Amino acid sequence: MMIVMQAQATEEEIQQVLEAIRSRGFQPHISRGEERVVIGVVGEARRAEPDAFLRLPGVARVVPLSRPYKLASREFHPENRIVHVGGVPIGGDEVIFIAGPCSVESREQMLETAFAVKEAGAHILRGGAFKPRTSPYSFQGLGEYGLELLAEAREATGLPVVTEVMAPEQVDLVARYADMLQIGARNMQNYALLRAAGASGKPVLLKRGMSATLDELLLAAEYILSTGNEQVVLCERGIRTFETATRNTTDINAIPALKARTSLPVLLDPSHGTGHWAYVAPVARAAVAAGADGLIVEVHPRPEEALSDGGQSLKPERFARLVQEARAIAHALGRSVLHEVPYVAAD
Amino acid sequence: MMIVMQAQATEEEIQQVLEAIRSRGFQPHISRGEERVVIGVVGEARRAEPDAFLRLPGVARVVPLSRPYKLASREFHPENRIVHVGGVPIGGDEVIFIAGPCSVESREQMLETAFAVKEAGAHILRGGAFKPRTSPYSFQGLGEYGLELLAEAREATGLPVVTEVMAPEQVDLVARYADMLQIGARNMQNYALLRAAGASGKPVLLKRGMSATLDELLLAAEYILSTGNEQVVLCERGIRTFETATRNTTDINAIPALKARTSLPVLLDPSHGTGHWAYVAPVARAAVAAGADGLIVEVHPRPEEALSDGGQSLKPERFARLVQEARAIAHALGRSVLHEVPYVAAD
Amino acid sequence: MMIVMQAQATEEEIQQVLEAIRSRGFQPHISRGEERVVIGVVGEARRAEPDAFLRLPGVARVVPLSRPYKLASREFHPENRIVHVGGVPIGGDEVIFIAGPCSVESREQMLETAFAVKEAGAHILRGGAFKPRTSPYSFQGLGEYGLELLAEAREATGLPVVTEVMAPEQVDLVARYADMLQIGARNMQNYALLRAAGASGKPVLLKRGMSATLDELLLAAEYILSTGNEQVVLCERGIRTFETATRNTTDINAIPALKARTSLPVLLDPSHGTGHWAYVAPVARAAVAAGADGLIVEVHPRPEEALSDGGQSLKPERFARLVQEARAIAHALGRSVLHEVPYVAAD
Amino acid sequence: MMIVMQAQATEEEIQQVLEAIRSRGFQPHISRGEERVVIGVVGEARRAEPDAFLRLPGVARVVPLSRPYKLASREFHPENRIVHVGGVPIGGDEVIFIAGPCSVESREQMLETAFAVKEAGAHILRGGAFKPRTSPYSFQGLGEYGLELLAEAREATGLPVVTEVMAPEQVDLVARYADMLQIGARNMQNYALLRAAGASGKPVLLKRGMSATLDELLLAAEYILSTGNEQVVLCERGIRTFETATRNTTDINAIPALKARTSLPVLLDPSHGTGHWAYVAPVARAAVAAGADGLIVEVHPRPEEALSDGGQSLKPERFARLVQEARAIAHALGRSVLHEVPYVAAD
Repeated sequence: MMIVMQAQATEEEIQQVLEAIRSRGFQPHISRGEERVVIGVVGEARRAEPDAFLRLPGVARVVPLSRPYKLASREFHPENRIVHVGGVPIGGDEVIFIAGPCSVESREQMLETAFAVKEAGAHILRGGAFKPRTSPYSFQGLGEYGLELLAEAREATGLPVVTEVMAPEQVDLVARYADMLQIGARNMQNYALLRAAGASGKPVLLKRGMSATLDELLLAAEYILSTGNEQVVLCERGIRTFETATRNTTDINAIPALKARTSLPVLLDPSHGTGHWAYVAPVARAAVAAGADGLIVEVHPRPEEALSDGGQSLKPERFARLVQEARAIAHALGRSVLHEVPYVAAD
Repeated sequence: MMIVMQAQATEEEIQQVLEAIRSRGFQPHISRGEERVVIGVVGEARRAEPDAFLRLPGVARVVPLSRPYKLASREFHPENRIVHVGGVPIGGDEVIFIAGPCSVESREQMLETAFAVKEAGAHILRGGAFKPRTSPYSFQGLGEYGLELLAEAREATGLPVVTEVMAPEQVDLVARYADMLQIGARNMQNYALLRAAGASGKPVLLKRGMSATLDELLLAAEYILSTGNEQVVLCERGIRTFETATRNTTDINAIPALKARTSLPVLLDPSHGTGHWAYVAPVARAAVAAGADGLIVEVHPRPEEALSDGGQSLKPERFARLVQEARAIAHALGRSVLHEVPYVAAD
Repeated sequence: MMIVMQAQATEEEIQQVLEAIRSRGFQPHISRGEERVVIGVVGEARRAEPDAFLRLPGVARVVPLSRPYKLASREFHPENRIVHVGGVPIGGDEVIFIAGPCSVESREQMLETAFAVKEAGAHILRGGAFKPRTSPYSFQGLGEYGLELLAEAREATGLPVVTEVMAPEQVDLVARYADMLQIGARNMQNYALLRAAGASGKPVLLKRGMSATLDELLLAAEYILSTGNEQVVLCERGIRTFETATRNTTDINAIPALKARTSLPVLLDPSHGTGHWAYVAPVARAAVAAGADGLIVEVHPRPEEALSDGGQSLKPERFARLVQEARAIAHALGRSVLHEVPYVAAD
Repeated sequence: MMIVMQAQATEEEIQQVLEAIRSRGFQPHISRGEERVVIGVVGEARRAEPDAFLRLPGVARVVPLSRPYKLASREFHPENRIVHVGGVPIGGDEVIFIAGPCSVESREQMLETAFAVKEAGAHILRGGAFKPRTSPYSFQGLGEYGLELLAEAREATGLPVVTEVMAPEQVDLVARYADMLQIGARNMQNYALLRAAGASGKPVLLKRGMSATLDELLLAAEYILSTGNEQVVLCERGIRTFETATRNTTDINAIPALKARTSLPVLLDPSHGTGHWAYVAPVARAAVAAGADGLIVEVHPRPEEALSDGGQSLKPERFARLVQEARAIAHALGRSVLHEVPYVAAD
């Protein structure tokens, strides 16, 4: 880090900062400019609390030089990392699709949707059994019965399954049924959950928090990676801004900006990113063109009857068309959409 | 809710919406304007999913009419509610102060701070034993040992204790030591935690999420209230905006806007709201002038040595001065700052 | 508009609202629900001030039903509108490229860039002669001499020219040289400028304000359209959010959301949208995939010497590659990038 | 500025940066850390374009060290500056009140309001003659006739007058009638207008843009100050955030944060800051408690008939009460509210 002194800092204040740096076991490196002094702190990467230096008299600012995450960084791991979910590779040359209903609602709905998205070209099945709902009066999910229906749909279609886990004590249960654990936007900084999901050894789909910076998303990934679990997939799903024309603002910049910072796979969720079915396909196409490794899309056979998120769910036929559009765009850019792969259970 | 049809909606589409309303057990009420038709849905308060109607052909928008929360609302409970924490009443005529270090760091630090804030006029002691940190490399708190130190500080000073709980399975442990459970900004929509904290029967200090609207904060309170636990105190702690001159943007409007919507007590946290010790006192004074029921302030005897949040912590003498300033403002507005009260253990 | 009464509004308050509606020459339409009364105001589309009704006792909210703009709306003008700039059609089946340096810096730089972007496939030349700079100490543009250089570059290449106008009294001058007037993000709500640009009769490129909603952008367009000038092109250029990894957050949702609301052409500016050259091409490709009618891209032969925005400018060879990528994506989606057209002077 | 090199930057890239610094006439100062090299640029304060260095190979980031503004800074001018408007001192020990209607609507309305706010304790009269309205269909102000009414109200009451100017060519006209020119939030970065207002020699009330950072506000002030006009008063009026419960989010942190950065006077506008009359007084009181030099408040004798902003206007009796509350708070903090002063015309 660099400690920027105030223009009017005294020599005594400067000496005090040098002393504070040394007393913590780091080396100071002083640089005297025209207007002010800047002091580099050598040897502290990610180990010192910037706030402590901020409180010393004469200090104007503390500027970190290292990225705050390490395991998640592309510097640490330059090659693209591939995460395998039931035989489906995420993060390689081929774009993948995760699709399914917002909530698991019934056996019929789940099976009908699973066959429909498979037929349309999806590689992984999604569906919520435990639902984080803003209101306690909204449908909260079927719980374990929903997990059973997801597993049945996997048996029937051969598609691996991803579903959300909302609390550390649910991790074991959900991990028994699912091929991949999803950590939702509201829980991106639920550190107990990040650690528990990491410790499960399952691949984790980590969604960006509604107001999380990219650095914070990567630090949340770092929590999982630091458990020794390297199977982390990031997902941009829209951020909260002043714009009310859409439910969230899809941060398309996040695709190249994350790719520059990390070698972990990056997906985009155009359903939550827009909140409106009519905008899902354009934004999904945009994600493929921007270099996303895949998409996660809400699909419901009869959105007008959905118990949650009907407004942003695609009908299966529209989803099938989207996969075709994505194929054409991927092809135009020298990539492709993954073809069907046989299901492979994790050990 | 009101369903606003598109200007060019056909009569058939209108009939379809009327039918959909009736099939869900509600009554439609149609209103034909110059440009478009609007259909009221009678009998659905908080029970229907707006998204489902959004997907019907010809529908332009769905406008909710009821507030999404009920138990938390002032309409439901018009009188100001008073929450008692170890004998300290929050939400009455008198302004209260919660103070203490960001993290419990050591026995000496904790006791020294506890005596100092009591001497300065604080009513409740704060201190983090389990710390939610953005980076896995930052100090994560002393855990149960920190809780023991908090309890010891309570014995020594008579001040009740509030501390953060980060996961449902920690609730029992934390509730054994603390007089009030804090749910932090990052966990405001951690629904499993909200329910577990509610079920503990302890008073809960619920901090607003970094990008949570006031309605979402009140819905989070509704989760706790719906467990039957009415001891909920809300806390504005700054929201995330584009401004980088301060760590967060204190939403001072939230004080009167929350007071209009709910009768629950409302505190403000100027330490996180500003992120800079020099702005803490002005913003704390502002909160008292705007009608807050109290403040929660980070105080540390030697901020430059703090393991977390040193940059925004007040020294005890500055905190003591703040309590005096708050007293003068409260007095100017016909209120007062609470005087010392004897500790009262909950049953 | 609909006037939503408070749950506890009295019959007298309701009658007062009915009276207020009638006294303004509109018709009330009352709808009594379970919890509250809602009153429709018939005949007021865009003519009444909602605020006035808000102040009547017992009123909870006022909900507008009409979109606030008319001339700009797709309802008013369902067919896509095509704006012609020196012979180049914007808004039709073919995607177009506007390219050039942020600032006109010298004759050499301008001509070199003009030939390079033409060679790469651009259709319109951009370059700033009057520069809105956040700091008074930054380069402010060459002024009229810059306009002369732009005109010379047009003569030399046959590319029409767009450049920014910053004040009403500059409109005549800029209109003498340019084929299209640009109104920058900072001036999107500079109403005197909108009117003057409209009155010039020239095509106008209207950039979205940094914190403008889509409705506000369309209302700004409405100011221009209401002068009788229908040659308006909208441009998404990134909005201001909490994210600091990029200069702005490109709102890719805005492409389909604008297309749904208006039939005016919609461009995207990936240079300002990202602020970082390495992210420009991915986001530009995304815009084409999402359905934008074209792109406006900053190109500089030696970005490290640029007097402004060097960090986000593409080199000509990278720009040429981007045009090829855009061609491939447009083709994949059944569109194409416009081929060269001969320059056509406006009358 | 400091140039932070990438961790893997080569020695050749480092030499290239040193060369680039020297070739621009500045001195490099190199600092080799554990992970990376940092290069200070000596002698460039506010003169170099950071973007240019960003484009050099191997450069990771450019960190400015100087504040981007100078004349506006407290470092440059440590003592609080007092701006006089018609004899009223703004920025001294005493808090002042500017009050009046949003728009000048009629002779009767203007005179009635002027006498009422004077009676209540206001020091300066406000009222809009040229109104910036988001929609072209809203009331746009009375223009010069409105200015005449303002001048008449000044004659009648002795209160100096502030009113908004929206375009450079209006400055002369408005300056003939008004004692202080207001530059509205939408025009904070209208540089032609800033310069023209500065050149008029009149005191300028500069409102913060809806999404302007404090640094940008101070840079806008710098534009005015750099014309030689030192009579600039800053005004916080709420920023745009995701929160929709209030029209804007009053940034109360801005009061102490601006006071730390600049010695110019700082006002707060609780009417626009909240957008709701019921929240105006609490937030106004907060501003006084936080250290603002004054308030600008919308007051209308019959808000339900107002042609603009009726929803956020106070009635005169509520405003009078607010002045009393402010007096009590100012007194509690060792300040006071200014008493009546005789009108003093500028030369």
